[in-house]
Amino acid sequence: MEKRALLYEGKAKRVYATNDDSVVWIEYKDEATAFNGQKKAEISGKGVLNNAITSLLFARLKEEGISSHFIEQISDREQLVKKVSIIPLEVVVRNVAAGTLASRIGYPEGKALKKPLVEFYYKDDELGDPLITDAHIEELQIAGLDDVRLLEQKALKVNAVLSSFFADMNIRLIDFKLEFGTTAEGEILLADEISPDTCRLWDATTYEKLDKDVFRRDLGSLTDTYKKLLSRLGGQQHV
Amino acid sequence: MEKRALLYEGKAKRVYATNDDSVVWIEYKDEATAFNGQKKAEISGKGVLNNAITSLLFARLKEEGISSHFIEQISDREQLVKKVSIIPLEVVVRNVAAGTLASRIGYPEGKALKKPLVEFYYKDDELGDPLITDAHIEELQIAGLDDVRLLEQKALKVNAVLSSFFADMNIRLIDFKLEFGTTAEGEILLADEISPDTCRLWDATTYEKLDKDVFRRDLGSLTDTYKKLLSRLGGQQHV
Repeated sequence: MEKRALLYEGKAKRVYATNDDSVVWIEYKDEATAFNGQKKAEISGKGVLNNAITSLLFARLKEEGISSHFIEQISDREQLVKKVSIIPLEVVVRNVAAGTLASRIGYPEGKALKKPLVEFYYKDDELGDPLITDAHIEELQIAGLDDVRLLEQKALKVNAVLSSFFADMNIRLIDFKLEFGTTAEGEILLADEISPDTCRLWDATTYEKLDKDVFRRDLGSLTDTYKKLLSRLGGQQHV
Repeated sequence: MEKRALLYEGKAKRVYATNDDSVVWIEYKDEATAFNGQKKAEISGKGVLNNAITSLLFARLKEEGISSHFIEQISDREQLVKKVSIIPLEVVVRNVAAGTLASRIGYPEGKALKKPLVEFYYKDDELGDPLITDAHIEELQIAGLDDVRLLEQKALKVNAVLSSFFADMNIRLIDFKLEFGTTAEGEILLADEISPDTCRLWDATTYEKLDKDVFRRDLGSLTDTYKKLLSRLGGQQHV
């Protein structure tokens, strides 16, 4: 596989074309951002850790029959993935109230939800990634409602697999954000990344935060936290 | 009918018990509030105007087969209505982008929507009446999803009747907020008020605002505006 032109640079990753039209080359960056880019830092090693954790989680999901864009990890900060057109929705699954859900519905952080709850946010930096409903998704013609229900079902399945996987390491999956994309053939695939940048993960006993809230809330070293998480998941950094 | 103890005082109305357990006595106040109570004023005559307009609109809806809590207007600022327990949802119907919808989805104010759009807000002053989705409504056990769909259908029917009624007076119904309540027998009824406090109404030719945005945005005299609206609707103030 040959790396070609830079197609897109996001906050956390660069995406390059390859000599195969259906495959792109992802490079994980060290930049950390929070609060819609208002808080920023360059954190050496973060890209390597997120690449390792995402690769491990996508591989785990595949074992459980959940396909994604992930093909393989090819270096410490690089992956090959199937090329998709990202659907501009952040699909958030929540098991426990935290972050904006806690403030929206008036729950204390840490309160368990009656059942896993799926939310959709409109992926639009200028608008601040607002919460949207089915009616807004229809109005904006982002996706048909059948596809929205499909995304919801896929997200809940990912939640079941990952919640159980993390529970085996005594970690509680509080909430997480997924993105999906459509292949040239029209297949909807899980895409983007699944990492402590996109999940809230708490030690199930001590409630210690093992995710980006450590950065958002200045609770300690992000890389120490992510390293600890990776090691608890049984993963290793490619160095 | 006999007026008894004050049951509840809201921002715009007082509610009294009567000698009939199934009926309450409503008194429209002159207070105007906006931005979740952050902007406030006492505007002489506002209560009288909103009582007249609400009474006229509920009567109009009844003629079109849409029942509500409204029984009758009994004085310039008083109504008798059926006693209901208010469902803590603000049901908002929108025909044209304005207010928070415009900023949420990035539409310019005044852009027509592809079809009428219904939103639900959690009626909770402390939380700032946040937008919520079906999943939040289920989690909060505010209402079952069958009832949510019923509210949506009722709200769209109200929209059809009122849009056509206002159109006859060359007024465009931009958006409005409804509240519903449940009677002791479990019937869900349209409740609260329908007035320029709860609707956005624009002159269809000049786009002049005929609603509370005049107060929110300091565009002129609220009572002059409400009087003009009432007279265009063919209504009269009981004085």
